[in-house]
Amino acid sequence: MPMRNIKITLAYNGSRYHGFQVQKNAITICEIFQNAVEKIFSMRYDVVGCSRTDSGVHANGYVLCMKITENIPCRGIKSALNHTLPNDIAVTDCTEVPLDFHPRYTAKKKQYIYRIWNSDNKNPFLYETTLHYPHKLDEKLLSLAAAEFVGTHDFTTFCALASDVDDKTRTIYSCEVRRTGDLVEVIICGDGFLYNMVRIIVGTLLKVAQGKFAPQDIPAMIQARDRQRAGATAPAHGLALDCVMYD
Amino acid sequence: MPMRNIKITLAYNGSRYHGFQVQKNAITICEIFQNAVEKIFSMRYDVVGCSRTDSGVHANGYVLCMKITENIPCRGIKSALNHTLPNDIAVTDCTEVPLDFHPRYTAKKKQYIYRIWNSDNKNPFLYETTLHYPHKLDEKLLSLAAAEFVGTHDFTTFCALASDVDDKTRTIYSCEVRRTGDLVEVIICGDGFLYNMVRIIVGTLLKVAQGKFAPQDIPAMIQARDRQRAGATAPAHGLALDCVMYD
Repeated sequence: MPMRNIKITLAYNGSRYHGFQVQKNAITICEIFQNAVEKIFSMRYDVVGCSRTDSGVHANGYVLCMKITENIPCRGIKSALNHTLPNDIAVTDCTEVPLDFHPRYTAKKKQYIYRIWNSDNKNPFLYETTLHYPHKLDEKLLSLAAAEFVGTHDFTTFCALASDVDDKTRTIYSCEVRRTGDLVEVIICGDGFLYNMVRIIVGTLLKVAQGKFAPQDIPAMIQARDRQRAGATAPAHGLALDCVMYD
Repeated sequence: MPMRNIKITLAYNGSRYHGFQVQKNAITICEIFQNAVEKIFSMRYDVVGCSRTDSGVHANGYVLCMKITENIPCRGIKSALNHTLPNDIAVTDCTEVPLDFHPRYTAKKKQYIYRIWNSDNKNPFLYETTLHYPHKLDEKLLSLAAAEFVGTHDFTTFCALASDVDDKTRTIYSCEVRRTGDLVEVIICGDGFLYNMVRIIVGTLLKVAQGKFAPQDIPAMIQARDRQRAGATAPAHGLALDCVMYD
């Protein structure tokens, strides 16, 4: 049988999982996915993901690939996986792609959404997927600050110290803040993101909300290339990998 | 200290609970609430709820009362409860009401919402709070059927057989079906509801969607006063008590 490269898009609530990447002694999305595949094909397959996601981070459109020889139509793979996977992980798309398609290396853009429940009241339906922030958030002010991240910059200031990446230059295509009632969303699209980059950007936007930084302080913070200058890393559970774009 | 009647509005995700009402050997909203109150006041108080809700049913605006003597402002009670209650139960409002206010007996209207995720794809963020229904749902057809429930009728056909209520006459003020993308909501408002009434109405609407009943069949079904004539009881997890209205 010829080899087929199957591209799968997942949506998942990451609350119960320690991120995507397989780890010892911790349940991960990848492991649960591979277990489901094994149940269906009676064979364990390697999968390649589009990124690691941190523990507790969610996804609307995570992309992974697996190379299989079975001659099952994609429609059937999607349906079998959705019957086998737990309720908090769903296959939203399944297509066959060229053998040289790679979820990470061929990605052109990634978009993340960070969601904030901005109300005095807790939301018992969104506590797993939004940061509860009861203080004032002026989305117009935050939009001004968010716009300062757009462009090609060395984002050392907005990267976790633990990162071992050499080149910290990334291009942010857009960074917007939108409010729908009590829900505030930070939507950020770029060619790639450093370790904790979105969460540190959001932590910095929260400092802007608190009046501790002004939007016009952001360019100097970026130039400083110093993690100490930025805000704290916002909690993981507000973050979702929204989509990955390819050519 | 004079007695005060405290009216509390709760929002909760009922997934982990066996309804509101205290039961032996099962965790209920009421018990968790009373435990939180006891932690704060070092005293166990009786609470009176606006209705029993079934196991797995949610609430956006459940109303309960408790009579206390402590002289703590309502703002403080709300804040202390929200710090003490688990994340899936929130106090959204707390006010002092006259001593003769009763959450059930003085209620004038109740509104329920039944939510359906109408997509081929599972939704990993809404599986606890919506019924996943992957087949065709024509909300315009369902709206026509829903309108047939409006009015004052004997709803025996739409009441669980287990009910021991004598008078099964209820008034439905409105029953609407709305679609927002893949989310279909049945919103029903009445002066009161029989046991499983909303879930049986929704189960009947699903039969209309499947072409097994026509909207114009509903009046004869109501007149028959026969539970066998209606559709199945829709699952609990799609249902939420939306709000209770008082004079």
